[in-house]
Order: sequence, then structure tokens, then C-alpha cells
Amino acid sequence: MARAINFNAGPAALPAAALERAQKELLDLAGTGMSVMEHSHRGKAYEAVHNEAISLVRELMGVPDSYDVLLLQGGASQQFAVVPMNLLPAGKSADYVLTGAWSQKAYKEAKSVGTVRVAATTEKDKKFGRIPSQKELELDPNAAYVHITSNNTIFGTQWAEFPDTGSVPLVADMSSDIAWRPIDVSKFGLIYAGAQKNLGPSGLVVVIVKKELVAAGRSDIPAIFQYRTHADNNSLYNTPPTFSVYVLRNVLEELKKAGGLSAVEKTNREKAKLIYDAIDERSDLYSSPVEKSARSTMNVVWTLKTPELEAEFLEEAKKRNMIGLKGHRSVGGMRASIYNAVSLEWCKALAELMKGFKR
Amino acid sequence: MARAINFNAGPAALPAAALERAQKELLDLAGTGMSVMEHSHRGKAYEAVHNEAISLVRELMGVPDSYDVLLLQGGASQQFAVVPMNLLPAGKSADYVLTGAWSQKAYKEAKSVGTVRVAATTEKDKKFGRIPSQKELELDPNAAYVHITSNNTIFGTQWAEFPDTGSVPLVADMSSDIAWRPIDVSKFGLIYAGAQKNLGPSGLVVVIVKKELVAAGRSDIPAIFQYRTHADNNSLYNTPPTFSVYVLRNVLEELKKAGGLSAVEKTNREKAKLIYDAIDERSDLYSSPVEKSARSTMNVVWTLKTPELEAEFLEEAKKRNMIGLKGHRSVGGMRASIYNAVSLEWCKALAELMKGFKR
Repeated sequence: MARAINFNAGPAALPAAALERAQKELLDLAGTGMSVMEHSHRGKAYEAVHNEAISLVRELMGVPDSYDVLLLQGGASQQFAVVPMNLLPAGKSADYVLTGAWSQKAYKEAKSVGTVRVAATTEKDKKFGRIPSQKELELDPNAAYVHITSNNTIFGTQWAEFPDTGSVPLVADMSSDIAWRPIDVSKFGLIYAGAQKNLGPSGLVVVIVKKELVAAGRSDIPAIFQYRTHADNNSLYNTPPTFSVYVLRNVLEELKKAGGLSAVEKTNREKAKLIYDAIDERSDLYSSPVEKSARSTMNVVWTLKTPELEAEFLEEAKKRNMIGLKGHRSVGGMRASIYNAVSLEWCKALAELMKGFKR
Repeated sequence: MARAINFNAGPAALPAAALERAQKELLDLAGTGMSVMEHSHRGKAYEAVHNEAISLVRELMGVPDSYDVLLLQGGASQQFAVVPMNLLPAGKSADYVLTGAWSQKAYKEAKSVGTVRVAATTEKDKKFGRIPSQKELELDPNAAYVHITSNNTIFGTQWAEFPDTGSVPLVADMSSDIAWRPIDVSKFGLIYAGAQKNLGPSGLVVVIVKKELVAAGRSDIPAIFQYRTHADNNSLYNTPPTFSVYVLRNVLEELKKAGGLSAVEKTNREKAKLIYDAIDERSDLYSSPVEKSARSTMNVVWTLKTPELEAEFLEEAKKRNMIGLKGHRSVGGMRASIYNAVSLEWCKALAELMKGFKR
């Protein structure tokens, strides 16, 4: 079977070379006669993989030494609870900026842990079709942290520039756009990202957190949920999801080979431009619900004039072996998720289909 | 490289056929042109795998309809906290039976959540080398639940018969011996097991829980930690660890082909007997710290007279391509973990080495 042109929103396409390496080594990691899945997480063969994955996150993202890189389980959805469990002490409040369904979920879950407030929301005036400006943010200078979702997969918006939160730590859910370009990690208190979009398979969440926040975190919660537990044990306190970490390593290795995050940013911008240009060029057919300044480079959403036309478009895409283009069930329309592993060629093919459709 | 003879304590050996299937399909699941890792967890191809895995757990273990089967993340270590978070309301206490390091960890973590008491411990009189009898258990008839660890990987002990806890729900951590033989699930309120010993790769924990306990569980904790969240969503509330579930499916399929749990019990008993017989036969060389009635069929531990002899034994094993025989760092000695996927042939080879050593 030819490789599908995969525009899935996540779990999503992975670099073919990373998968091919996994396939080749599946029953024999590094000449050990065992699958990586069969290795002890305390043995040398796995530890080399584990440490390489962490080093590559550090290297590619330029993570300062004053930050821990943690490889955890439970995905971003679990971090929605674990972030406030660690960082939101009694008597303090945390600020949430609501820019879509995932930030709403993060907010709701945090509410079950402690006191939270909404610093801004773009729900009402534009149905999450934009990102708030700095001056719209009603920030509490005493907040424990400010939480944002850097990219909104469902609504197709993305923070082009990150907000200035002064001395209050900025916490970002970067599940759908981590490592799409270089960023200045030192501007954040904590970054978390489910791996299954830009980094690897599901079942793994990467947490990059300032050591001083780890040290100051609450210790009256179960040990398994304390960041310090995992920081103190190099993410080997309990058995890590070893195969997922291994695939993360393979994916990051490909990212490095491709020239790192500056190179991947250039390609990602080209990819997004191809599709947005097609939307704008065929305004007779397509429209975008997103303000131009907030357009996501990872998830491009658009609509056609009628549900019939949308169904027809999906049919044409299917004929070309393209999958995953249907918009999220909550909003409808079309969505192309074009994460790091989605090639420029795939995006060209989609743009051509879009431009030629019904011509 | 020849396949290693793998006696790892976990992550551990997996059935070669399950891995070979994963290798073959790694870039193309069911003719879709995508890896299982690249499929949406909301798509048909993955959902078929997910539902098959759950059905196979139900079928092989004879799980009654009045129980939910959940596929979660975070391993048994996370369940140490999540069990009391759900099942231990304020004003109630839970009973813990301490039979080794893992039950101690479960107890300690539960203590950070609510009120717990020790119903029995075998630490002092025999250094965890036995399992307490029914009459030793000082059970609280009003306890929220009684927690046991069904098999103790480090100390090599196992509950041959499960305790009678009357109307108090019995909760068992079966991480290291789930599905080694048929059991009567209806005797338990909740069973949990990290997959990485008998069932599949790490990064996945199987929870089998009585529906009435799910319904009665606390709802003042974050949604992600409530069993009802996952029960109501067929373990698809958030993105599951899709590849781990896929490998679980492959492993269970092999278990079914091998004749199910009755057949595997027979083999497992034969395997354990081979090694225990070797220990007993060469009492000049080996000794077992475990009471005979408590001997584990999954983890066989023994010692040699001196550390030098132990090192020499490990050298001989290495020459035969056997790995993972060193005892846990906390107790020393030897340990052979002989989970479901460790073949009778491998155990024969080990028993022969043991019987012939220094003869």
C-alpha cells in the first residue's frame, strides 16, 4: 500500500525514516537480540535511548540548563490537572487565557484543583477565530502562573508572539506546535506537549519546566504527580513508556538531520502559505473563519459554501489518497493538519487540488 | 542477532509472533498506508484495534459484564494514587496488606491521599519471604477496600489463594501476574496491572473495575483521574497510548492462540517447577529465601553461597545468551522472571545450567 497523504490532527503523520528505523530494529535493538520494548528501563541499552531523547529535546529547542526536561505519561489532558496540582498553592490564583476548546478544558480541570480566573477569552466576539492582543489580557500580577494554549488545533489559530506576563510564570500547552520553529524557552515557566502531533507517538508528554518552579512545587500531593519526583529521577521513577520514548528519539534525530528547528520553520511556513494562498485565491469557493494574524501554521481550517461541496471535496481528496481533512466534529468544515512530518510535497498536492476544484 | 533468552523482570520478553506482526505492519496497518501510530484514535482502523484489545481482556480473563475494562496511562505507580483518589472518601479508611516493596509504595502513596491502615505485613518475621495467612489479616470491616499485591516481583512471593475480605472490595495490583492463569474476577472490586510484564509494552495499565465502584467513586477530583471519565468514554476520553494498545492486542491474540489462560497456567507451572526443582536439587549451591507455599510462578529468586559464585553464575548464563538474571538491586541474589512470554525451552535451558553449574 502506498503511503497515505496524512493530514490527521493527531495522532498524526510521523517521519517515514523514523518509522523505518523502528521497523528494522523492532526485534533487535542495537544488536541485543531484544526489542526496545523488552529491555529493562534500568538497563544500558534503553537508558542510552532515553538520555539521547532528552538531549535532543535540549539541543533542538535550546533548553537552558536551569530547566528540567521530563518525559511523562497521561498526555496534555493529565497535565491540565498536574500543572495546578504542582504550581497552584492554596491562597493563590492562576490566570487562564481561553483561545479554544483545549484551553477551556485546561481551565475547567484546573478549577477542580484550585482557584483560577479567566484573563481573556476570544470565544464570544469571534468564536475563537483570533488570538487576544497583549492589551486585552487582564492579568493578575499576583497569579501563580498564566496559562495559554500556543496553537489551537480545532479553531486553527496560533499565538504568533507570546504574551508578556512580567514576573508571573508563563505556562504553555504546546501539544500541537512544539518544535515547529525555534523559540526562547527562557520566556516560559513551563511548557508541556503531548507527543502525538509534532514529536512522536501518543502515550508520552514532554514537560520542560524551570527548576525553580519544580523546587517550589507543592509536596502535599501524591509523589507520582510531583514534578520533582521525575526531575530527581531523570524520568525513571517509574517505568517510562519506553517504546514511545524510542520513537521520539527517532523523530528528533530526523528533525536534527533536516537541519533543526530553523530549517523546519522555513518549510512549515512554506507549507502553510501554499494552503492559505489556495484559500485566498479561490474565495469564490473557500472561506477562512480565522483572522489573518492568527492563522495557524499547523492546522489550516476553512469551509466551503455548502455541506455538499465539502463532501465532494473530501471525495476528491480521498481519490488522491489524502486522509484526515475533515474538520473537528465540533466545528465542521475542513482542516489540514500540517505538522513537522507532513511534507512540502503533500501540501503542494493539497493546494493543487484546492485550486483546481470545481474549475 | 539471535533472540536473547530474556528473564527481565519488566519490561520483559514479549511473544515473538506479536512483535513480528508489529514489525510487518509498522508502516501499514490493515492496508491503510499508515502506521498504527499515525492513525487518529477516533478513526475506524484504530478503534477496531482498541475494541479488540478490550474484548480479548474480557474473553481471556472471563470479565463479568458488571465490570469495566479500562486502558489507561501512568502505570501501576499512578494507580497507587488513583485508586484511593477514587475509592477512599473522607471519613473512611483503607486496608493495605504489605508483602513487599511495591505494596509498601502503594501504601505510602495512598497515605498522601487519605486514611490507610496496615492489615498485615510480612516484613519483619521473614523479610517478605512469605504471604500472610487469612487469620493473620486484621481486617477492618468498615474499610473502603483492602489492597493486596498479588505477586511480589522483588521477593519472589505470590498469593496462591486470594484473601476473603467479606463485603469489603478487594483491590489487587496484578502487574506482575495478571493473566498467568484463570481467576474469578468477580471476587475483586478492582484489579490493575501495568502491561509491561505479562501483557505488552510499558506505558499502558489495564484496570478491571466493578461498575458499582466506578459509579460510587469520588467526583471531587480532576476528571482525568476519575474512573467514570474513562468508563463513560471507552478509554477514549483523551488520546490513548495507541501503539501500546495495539501491541497488547497482538499479545492477547497470541495468548488466545496458545489455548487461553488454562493452557498458559499449565505451561507456567511447568516452567516454575523446572527452576524450583533445580534450586532444591542443588541445595549444596542454592537457597531460596521464600517459604515453599508462597513461591511465585512468575519471579523465582534464589541465592548462591557467595557473591563470587553469583558473579560466576551470571557469567555462565551470559555465555548462553541469557539476560536479566541478576536479583533486584535492593535484595541481590538471582532472579528469573518467567512471565507468560518466557518459553518452556528457555526455562529448561536455565534449569540445566543451574543443575550442571560447578558439578
